[in-house]
Amino acid sequence: MRNIRTDLAVEAREIYAKESNGNPQGVEYKEYKIGDVNITDVTITNEIGERNMGKPKGTYITLDLPEFAHYDGEIRDEVSKAMAQALEGLIKLDESMTALVVGLGNWNVTPDALGPKVVSKLMVTRHLKQLVPDSIDEGVRPVCAIAPGVLGITGIETYEIIKGIVEKVKPNLIICIDALASRKMERVNKTIQIGNTGISPGSGVGNKRMEISERTLGIPTIAIGVPTVVEAATMANDTIDLVLDAMIKEATEGSKFYEMLKAIDKNEKSRMIREVLDPYVGNLMVTPKEVDMVIDSLAVIIANGINIALQPALDLDDINKFLN
Amino acid sequence: MRNIRTDLAVEAREIYAKESNGNPQGVEYKEYKIGDVNITDVTITNEIGERNMGKPKGTYITLDLPEFAHYDGEIRDEVSKAMAQALEGLIKLDESMTALVVGLGNWNVTPDALGPKVVSKLMVTRHLKQLVPDSIDEGVRPVCAIAPGVLGITGIETYEIIKGIVEKVKPNLIICIDALASRKMERVNKTIQIGNTGISPGSGVGNKRMEISERTLGIPTIAIGVPTVVEAATMANDTIDLVLDAMIKEATEGSKFYEMLKAIDKNEKSRMIREVLDPYVGNLMVTPKEVDMVIDSLAVIIANGINIALQPALDLDDINKFLN
Amino acid sequence: MRNIRTDLAVEAREIYAKESNGNPQGVEYKEYKIGDVNITDVTITNEIGERNMGKPKGTYITLDLPEFAHYDGEIRDEVSKAMAQALEGLIKLDESMTALVVGLGNWNVTPDALGPKVVSKLMVTRHLKQLVPDSIDEGVRPVCAIAPGVLGITGIETYEIIKGIVEKVKPNLIICIDALASRKMERVNKTIQIGNTGISPGSGVGNKRMEISERTLGIPTIAIGVPTVVEAATMANDTIDLVLDAMIKEATEGSKFYEMLKAIDKNEKSRMIREVLDPYVGNLMVTPKEVDMVIDSLAVIIANGINIALQPALDLDDINKFLN
Amino acid sequence: MRNIRTDLAVEAREIYAKESNGNPQGVEYKEYKIGDVNITDVTITNEIGERNMGKPKGTYITLDLPEFAHYDGEIRDEVSKAMAQALEGLIKLDESMTALVVGLGNWNVTPDALGPKVVSKLMVTRHLKQLVPDSIDEGVRPVCAIAPGVLGITGIETYEIIKGIVEKVKPNLIICIDALASRKMERVNKTIQIGNTGISPGSGVGNKRMEISERTLGIPTIAIGVPTVVEAATMANDTIDLVLDAMIKEATEGSKFYEMLKAIDKNEKSRMIREVLDPYVGNLMVTPKEVDMVIDSLAVIIANGINIALQPALDLDDINKFLN
Repeated sequence: MRNIRTDLAVEAREIYAKESNGNPQGVEYKEYKIGDVNITDVTITNEIGERNMGKPKGTYITLDLPEFAHYDGEIRDEVSKAMAQALEGLIKLDESMTALVVGLGNWNVTPDALGPKVVSKLMVTRHLKQLVPDSIDEGVRPVCAIAPGVLGITGIETYEIIKGIVEKVKPNLIICIDALASRKMERVNKTIQIGNTGISPGSGVGNKRMEISERTLGIPTIAIGVPTVVEAATMANDTIDLVLDAMIKEATEGSKFYEMLKAIDKNEKSRMIREVLDPYVGNLMVTPKEVDMVIDSLAVIIANGINIALQPALDLDDINKFLN
Repeated sequence: MRNIRTDLAVEAREIYAKESNGNPQGVEYKEYKIGDVNITDVTITNEIGERNMGKPKGTYITLDLPEFAHYDGEIRDEVSKAMAQALEGLIKLDESMTALVVGLGNWNVTPDALGPKVVSKLMVTRHLKQLVPDSIDEGVRPVCAIAPGVLGITGIETYEIIKGIVEKVKPNLIICIDALASRKMERVNKTIQIGNTGISPGSGVGNKRMEISERTLGIPTIAIGVPTVVEAATMANDTIDLVLDAMIKEATEGSKFYEMLKAIDKNEKSRMIREVLDPYVGNLMVTPKEVDMVIDSLAVIIANGINIALQPALDLDDINKFLN
Repeated sequence: MRNIRTDLAVEAREIYAKESNGNPQGVEYKEYKIGDVNITDVTITNEIGERNMGKPKGTYITLDLPEFAHYDGEIRDEVSKAMAQALEGLIKLDESMTALVVGLGNWNVTPDALGPKVVSKLMVTRHLKQLVPDSIDEGVRPVCAIAPGVLGITGIETYEIIKGIVEKVKPNLIICIDALASRKMERVNKTIQIGNTGISPGSGVGNKRMEISERTLGIPTIAIGVPTVVEAATMANDTIDLVLDAMIKEATEGSKFYEMLKAIDKNEKSRMIREVLDPYVGNLMVTPKEVDMVIDSLAVIIANGINIALQPALDLDDINKFLN
Repeated sequence: MRNIRTDLAVEAREIYAKESNGNPQGVEYKEYKIGDVNITDVTITNEIGERNMGKPKGTYITLDLPEFAHYDGEIRDEVSKAMAQALEGLIKLDESMTALVVGLGNWNVTPDALGPKVVSKLMVTRHLKQLVPDSIDEGVRPVCAIAPGVLGITGIETYEIIKGIVEKVKPNLIICIDALASRKMERVNKTIQIGNTGISPGSGVGNKRMEISERTLGIPTIAIGVPTVVEAATMANDTIDLVLDAMIKEATEGSKFYEMLKAIDKNEKSRMIREVLDPYVGNLMVTPKEVDMVIDSLAVIIANGINIALQPALDLDDINKFLN
């Protein structure tokens, strides 16, 4: 597999297209609108696509949030509805089947708190269906949720926690929400990716055993991700590339200098990144200043999108009243 | 069992003593000091004690926090050390055995967030022992932790979540932390109770099946509780009792009025409580204004107490450096 | 003046009516609706009204929030618009005149943070009108704002801070927002009071010199208040009254006991309140558990109400875009 | 004046030294220790020094925080004491003179909230000296404080607010606290600068009229600053410089390419920075992930340092008890 380090399928495709001057084989691509929301579907159809994209086979739906989405309740509701429609395309569930929503990430780090915040705004009903079934409409689906925390705080792989809970709760569908890192500031807090190939929480990068997916859990697993930061190391790396690209364009092809620029290697780049970021390398993030407000807005959008998709018998008003 | 509704063994004993003019049978009681911290041990030794106290057999150790504990780092460290000593009396563990710490309660409600906050300040080591064993001293015990959330947010009984995780992690000891309700304002945020009989999270009141204890989990289970609120309904109830007591003292014994006062029944009291608290009955709490700061201070005290007790090979300085 | 201790004119009127079996003289009263929002106007017309109500002459407009207002963006917008309409009835300002909004209260105590939170959601324009006038429509009014903090944190009377700023900024209108205490749980977070008689911040109770009002500042001063807590001492007091009322109803009029109940005096009541609340008397508040979320919702409603009233040339969409 | 854009005198000196291969004229420099804390005094003695450093004449004392300062209460207290000692060198005040502490910055943006957080942890006494003088020792100095907010939220220049309050309160000393931007990650949250030349809040950059200083206010004004972020634009700029420096070192001096590299101009650099950071340029910050915890720790250190310096008659224990 290529080493394209991005959580977003649309970015992986862009990077491929830029580096290879062409679209990746084994990948289908479609753009359309639901209401005012621009949607992009990227489907990786075979192993060639997997190698080209550095991502497993499956469908990745990307919603671009309209401007002002975080400042206007009506636009927010519209995005939730578009998101619900996209989700419904991936979910095949009978009315009575149980869904488990998993809010990944760390409560204590604002841009990583998206998952836990979504959990706290969900319409959770499983316990009511069990304990006081008469209090609740028959058409309401049992939904439960967990925010398991991160490896550094729990000392337990997130996969182990989910697996343990899945064995007790026996859900028919899992939906994971996670904050992602983007390569581009312009996507930060502006993009929602919905995929049916599961997720590898931060700690488990490259660790297939700990992936949270249908493959490992035996239950359909949807992953919803939003890029909420650019890692400072990524930003430094991209800045360096930008400077080198500009230099290379100026240098005479074939000249000694041109070759030298081409030859600047990974080690040299890492050294420069370390020099800029020391002593915090790996622990730094780049965020917009209004991050608290924006994460709250994203949590409302996503929680409502899930609520609408999981409760087709209810409308947003019913859901809001229930949450009261 | 008597219907003494308090989470604290020392309060149950006081209520018994007041109502019955004597100490409960089947209960041992001991007061002493560790450093400047006043400690009370209440041990329920048999079934008569269980009935008298409305609590299961076992040991309940209560620490009274010295004045200014929440405003003075040195006093805080002293309480942590006393707490560690009390804990060590209840824990019998080999060095290499794994401990799971469970922070009960709701992140989003400040006085209920004590458990999750303790989790975020713990020295968590299990993943390091597994993934990078060379990075960590041999004498360090594997510790992991989870903040499972509350039934209203997860839709899953806390017991089910813990049980699922226990089956994966296979710890040798469980320590639960929970925010309790007290009957008396003077105990709020001033008392730490440590018991070896487990805990019934809010939702599971009276529901033995969902208890988190050695009986249900098969693993020694310590419960650490701090009263952080008085329920407004309790406060209203106690106020009514206080007024009635004052009236009764004034009324001539045997008079019609005396009998009437004696006869005021539960229904009448509930009606009055509802009238005062409507429309929020059951959803109101009484807290001191500086509640955010005090919960943070309690979380530090308890996390450090647990850290010291679980890592006998380290001192508080080592632990603080590790947490960096 | 009567000693009616409530910040709300509608409550003062109710208490008068209950105690005196009639409506207070010197007070006009009107109920009506703006959209779905119930409004009550209480106008104190003369000094007899002032004495009867324990409040200065002037108009007090009260909005009752519809159910679900805190859970439904559309209802929230409707309340903002009703509030703007009520405000516009009290404000007489030319387009170009400057408004100063003052958010009273303490950032660090959630139910007291309403004022500062409103300030952070306002459309603030004065500096743009001064520094980059071309960037902003001519029809936009200059608005500035301050959250001065509370006496216990600043050591300066709020009046002094406001007076100092007023002398520099020379506004033509002042709008103060403050969190109030109610006597009744049913009004908590459900009622917005708008008055044209100014405000005495907590610390200044009974201290006319430190009142923030047209009388002391020489500029029209609107006060917007929302009851966000019931003081625990008030709750205990009202509970005691409730019990006594029930007793009195049962006792034979003229009997010795009846007289005794009637004779229970203030000192006895204070003693009982202290006994229930010790050691926190005066520092305890009763709040619903979801207080953080509700205060945020109230801040949005009030900030938007003010934004709409102060910027008649703009609609809510323009305002939201500006705030971006 | 040179265009050295850094808030820190030690950084300005380093940049001068690097660019000019020598120490700046008109600047004195001294390194020493108070306890375990490394201190650097930079004194700008004349106008040549002002031009060389891009800063006004005066003394700038810099404390380097020892490792683990944010994780160890004892180290924290030691830094507070060293800071108090440094402050006392700059402050000449009689016991009875009033101090006004100003916490600059924005409550709603964590790394900018340092000033307001310090204010909320100060020992504020002015109102007690005025209202209940008998409750407080004679040796206690009157201290008051304000967190005025930022221009974007208030619409009022911070200078105007302070000036207005100063005219009412008539303090004999002003201490301002502000979060700064550093050029180097290694200084972020690790350095405290104390200077006697006042401060220009963010908005007022280059605007001498709005400076908060003895020159504009007529009262001695101390500024305490801590770098809590690196602006993302600075980071991108420094990364570009680093790459260019590396290129230049490789290029043959005098060659066409060498000249080209030397000639890369400001506009080109700005274009690249915009490309990396779009659409957030100017609104992005780079912070360590644990920023919430670290800002709290810094606020405690600085508040206690000020408390000790302003209340020479009290020790840290007395101060902590007072704050209870």
